[in-house]
Amino acid sequence: MEIKVVKRVLDANDTMAEKNREGFKRAGVFVLNVMSSPGSGKTTLLQKTLSRVMPDIRCAVIVGDICTTHDADRLAESGAPVVQINTEQFGGDCHLAAHVVWKAAENFDLKDLDLLVVENVGNLVCPAEFDIGENARVVALSVTEGEDKPVKYPLMFRQCHAALLSKTDLLPHIEYDRAAAIGYIHQVHPGMPVFEVSARTGEGMDAWIAWLTERIQAARSA
Amino acid sequence: MEIKVVKRVLDANDTMAEKNREGFKRAGVFVLNVMSSPGSGKTTLLQKTLSRVMPDIRCAVIVGDICTTHDADRLAESGAPVVQINTEQFGGDCHLAAHVVWKAAENFDLKDLDLLVVENVGNLVCPAEFDIGENARVVALSVTEGEDKPVKYPLMFRQCHAALLSKTDLLPHIEYDRAAAIGYIHQVHPGMPVFEVSARTGEGMDAWIAWLTERIQAARSA
Repeated sequence: MEIKVVKRVLDANDTMAEKNREGFKRAGVFVLNVMSSPGSGKTTLLQKTLSRVMPDIRCAVIVGDICTTHDADRLAESGAPVVQINTEQFGGDCHLAAHVVWKAAENFDLKDLDLLVVENVGNLVCPAEFDIGENARVVALSVTEGEDKPVKYPLMFRQCHAALLSKTDLLPHIEYDRAAAIGYIHQVHPGMPVFEVSARTGEGMDAWIAWLTERIQAARSA
Repeated sequence: MEIKVVKRVLDANDTMAEKNREGFKRAGVFVLNVMSSPGSGKTTLLQKTLSRVMPDIRCAVIVGDICTTHDADRLAESGAPVVQINTEQFGGDCHLAAHVVWKAAENFDLKDLDLLVVENVGNLVCPAEFDIGENARVVALSVTEGEDKPVKYPLMFRQCHAALLSKTDLLPHIEYDRAAAIGYIHQVHPGMPVFEVSARTGEGMDAWIAWLTERIQAARSA
């Protein structure tokens, strides 16, 4: 019974996600869905990403959290318009559903945007199940979380188009086998691009920004 | 519709959790539900906890993960019997439900145990909604995850009886305001005990072990 019901909810979400995708495409905006565990550094990574690509790329951000506007407040410092979704009013939802993202996106004039970033609820499980009509999905995994999360949470790593191994500035202080971590990622998603980054030092950010901007441009000329 | 359905699932879980609680009480075993984000160091903390309390306290462990037996393999080194639940067969469930925990617990002779540890799926959202009939719930939060997770994921911190601020050995290498972190915990759960621990160095483990053993003894003499 439970499984049937979940399927119905996911079917309804897929239908809405398809509408989102059409709406985003019509407006010519590239939508990036950023997911990770709580505390893996998504917000800091996005702050640094926005500061690198703006104003050439016109950005807006939707931030999903169960409670608080902490992340929205931090991201608004970039100058990009930001909408915070608090899922508490949807029963404390552990993910962003497609219809919730669309409602938030209606706050922007999408035609004036090149990139709409969606910072999803911090959760390495459920957000991977909900298509929001995005162009690309990326997962951040901080090195402090250990090497084996990709095989323990395979759906997330299978669904994403790139992985960001974040907080690499902490590598000297922890036991960490980066080859093993990348090996686990490629075990569940062969060939997925992996960017090793430190938002704090800027290390590795060039390659990530290049990947992102290339995809935005490719979508624009498609 | 979705909310009604979720309520039905949670009602069914509560009924089963009550049965678990009676069964655990009848056997005289104390059940500890350990929750956190992925990669906050639950398994290492539990390895160190088991090595401190065994064999005086007779322990067994149930480990929940979507996939892999990595954590079970590590915990089995303690000598405690360990059962791994892989929720992949339940649709990749993001939490342990009460009936799943009971099925795993049936692998042990509960009467021969003092402490049954349940290491839940790494997720700071959903496991907090599912009572498994435990005696105590604790949440681990690594300092690398930042200070504000308690206010962003309030249900988890409200539902737990103690918080473990883990990986304190990394404090010299990160920007972290421990007073702010503890303040956020007490904002959502006034007075909740907070143990600042490093499983790696052993710092702070005494107070945590004392709290746990006191509760086991109190439950036994109740």
